Amino acid sequence: MTLIDKIKKGDIPIFIKEVSDFEEVTEDFLLDKILKGRVVIPDNEAHSNKRRVAIGEGMNVKINVNIGTSLDKVDLDLEIRKIELSERLEADTIMDLSVGGDIVKIRRDLISKTLLPFGTVPLYEVAARCSDKEGSFATASTEDFFEVLEGQAREGVDFFTIHAGITADCIGKLKRSDRMLDTVSRGGALMLEWMIINERENPFYEHFDRVLEITKKYGVTISLGDALRPGSIFDAGDSLQYHETFVVSDLVRRAKDYGVQTMVEGPGHVPLDKIEHEIKAIKEIIGGAPLYILGPLVIDSAAGYDHINAAIGASIAAHAGADFLCYLTPAEHLSLPDIDDVRDGIMAFKIAAQAVNFCRGKNRVVQRELKVNRARKERDWDEQMKFFLDSEKALEYRNKIPPEIKDTCSMCSNFCSMKIVEKYLNKKLTA
Amino acid sequence: MTLIDKIKKGDIPIFIKEVSDFEEVTEDFLLDKILKGRVVIPDNEAHSNKRRVAIGEGMNVKINVNIGTSLDKVDLDLEIRKIELSERLEADTIMDLSVGGDIVKIRRDLISKTLLPFGTVPLYEVAARCSDKEGSFATASTEDFFEVLEGQAREGVDFFTIHAGITADCIGKLKRSDRMLDTVSRGGALMLEWMIINERENPFYEHFDRVLEITKKYGVTISLGDALRPGSIFDAGDSLQYHETFVVSDLVRRAKDYGVQTMVEGPGHVPLDKIEHEIKAIKEIIGGAPLYILGPLVIDSAAGYDHINAAIGASIAAHAGADFLCYLTPAEHLSLPDIDDVRDGIMAFKIAAQAVNFCRGKNRVVQRELKVNRARKERDWDEQMKFFLDSEKALEYRNKIPPEIKDTCSMCSNFCSMKIVEKYLNKKLTA
Repeated sequence: MTLIDKIKKGDIPIFIKEVSDFEEVTEDFLLDKILKGRVVIPDNEAHSNKRRVAIGEGMNVKINVNIGTSLDKVDLDLEIRKIELSERLEADTIMDLSVGGDIVKIRRDLISKTLLPFGTVPLYEVAARCSDKEGSFATASTEDFFEVLEGQAREGVDFFTIHAGITADCIGKLKRSDRMLDTVSRGGALMLEWMIINERENPFYEHFDRVLEITKKYGVTISLGDALRPGSIFDAGDSLQYHETFVVSDLVRRAKDYGVQTMVEGPGHVPLDKIEHEIKAIKEIIGGAPLYILGPLVIDSAAGYDHINAAIGASIAAHAGADFLCYLTPAEHLSLPDIDDVRDGIMAFKIAAQAVNFCRGKNRVVQRELKVNRARKERDWDEQMKFFLDSEKALEYRNKIPPEIKDTCSMCSNFCSMKIVEKYLNKKLTA
Repeated sequence: MTLIDKIKKGDIPIFIKEVSDFEEVTEDFLLDKILKGRVVIPDNEAHSNKRRVAIGEGMNVKINVNIGTSLDKVDLDLEIRKIELSERLEADTIMDLSVGGDIVKIRRDLISKTLLPFGTVPLYEVAARCSDKEGSFATASTEDFFEVLEGQAREGVDFFTIHAGITADCIGKLKRSDRMLDTVSRGGALMLEWMIINERENPFYEHFDRVLEITKKYGVTISLGDALRPGSIFDAGDSLQYHETFVVSDLVRRAKDYGVQTMVEGPGHVPLDKIEHEIKAIKEIIGGAPLYILGPLVIDSAAGYDHINAAIGASIAAHAGADFLCYLTPAEHLSLPDIDDVRDGIMAFKIAAQAVNFCRGKNRVVQRELKVNRARKERDWDEQMKFFLDSEKALEYRNKIPPEIKDTCSMCSNFCSMKIVEKYLNKKLTA
């Protein structure tokens, strides 16, 4: 049974209280949003001992951490360390995008290690399983797609990215389009390949009922992938992007009617001046379903710093209504991220989420900011460190050049404005 | 003679052509904006062999790099390397904020090393010169202030931060206010100290005519400092901030009438949802003068990552009309930045500027983005590297895990969406 089914039957899970407390909303508010398809709590019961995380309207903005092997680098231990770091830095969810090595075993190991809701892109397993020597997985049958889906659901994956919105008629549209980059979605490109070689419709679209059956049976949340998201700022908001959004909006409605929790994935690469209206338009089109975005990146020339590039876009997007932010690391577009890259990526997106959650008036967030400020005014460094989003990093910086005057830092030292003000303005903290 | 005086006399400097070409505006447009006080080109003739950089309405957004020693760390060689890096990464201006060591000699050395417009906060030299053992500079006389000003002007400083907006009546206002952090401006705090101990008005305000005489004589551009900028997101947009903005707006008008180029410094720390309207309000109050902002930081808890935090705010602010972005580094609030911190800070703000300049339709910026995209589609890595904002860093990332398949990267390898699309969609780049 899915969470929606349970709520409809009046069988309210115990975690609803905890989640609504965390989100600072009433239980009724939360339940109503879940029933309306405006909030999801990914929760496959087979993934036990897990944090429940609410994503959507009225909730705190959440962030996801992508991990996983590539064909060039398979290191399970590294991926486990990425999970541990994600939990320590209070990321909200994990997605395993492994495509290299024994990805079934890797996924089982990773899922058993994490307390966070765990997502995958099942298409990658289909592709990896059925790949021939040239790397093509064209021989995969429709049954292969659904076998993988059911297998992953059985093993406890909490949410699936399903590229169901890129349909056969998109092939002609793509060929005729003047897109800069046709598709930059790995799953989307794989699906195109399969459709073109087999001259068949996208099985996730054609047999969406089967997707719904499986996800309903195991309580998996669907995340409708955006195969045609803009992968260049020049492609943002084009007809291909909106075409897919329309297709997806219909699937969202079907999933909701069937009682399956669903979110929608969004852009991508979007110039800064288009983010707000695009996010608002997409949210309207998909009927207010939770919107899960990748970036958006505001320029295409910042390789090596795409975590910053994307955090800028993500902040604006989340403030405009996006609910769930997939982090990017500095390695994006260049290589598989290492552990430091993962840290940088998480922190860039933690900042975006914290900034927007502050604007949403979430008291936990406001209190944290207040505490930092009070400690800053008092020049109580131990106290400040307690409330920084990454105390370890802050302490490392502070200790780089230990200040001679202990209550200052090596930037201003004696010229510390806080000290001068305290001495001469003689005013204690009032706020 | 100042640039405004020259233009009024019809004596148009040769660099106006070059600058207007760079900014993709006509010479008449540029000259008109300068006369209206909406654009400045900092240019002290004593600093020869220098790039002319236009800051303000209709121009490309510019970024400034703060460098300089502190009492805890004096290393001239490091500061020179920061300048070299700034030039290599195409920052637009340098400010020397040195307060430690022989700051006069340091400034002379630094100014001789850079082709970028060079700014200072002369008050720091007054404070350093007149500091007693307890670090107080209360004995500084009004003459000391103006001696320093004239000395720095004579030596070629292109723009001065002048904290003239924090007046004696602000002391009472501050004492009665419920601000979280009274002033986080180093110059502002020093000025408060001097006014309180001496029970005197701010000499830069009281004798603003002398500031104008000196800046006019040497062609120095004034940057009116924001001593009362919010230093906490809880203080953003309070009456103290706007009080100072009103005081400053009057000084802007006086400077313009006197033929002295002037910009205004702005926030600071501002929650994400307040940035746009605050920037627009400030620009209106100051009559459209170029707005030079520090951040703004969108939260206060991101120490160690304040370059990202501030780049988020700066992007939104610049899109709302701010003209000139003072970078922050990851070391902000914690320690004096080292060379890597300077690099990270510059790049975060280069991204903000590039994103906004793209929205402004600046062709140079658009072309660069186009070229990255074309090379990305072709998987021509050498070509991509040419157009990334920091090719060195991008190459370093790419080489961390060399991909087995040369035209891919170690993230996707065989599953490269570009490769799949090229192979199966069989479409060449059309845009």
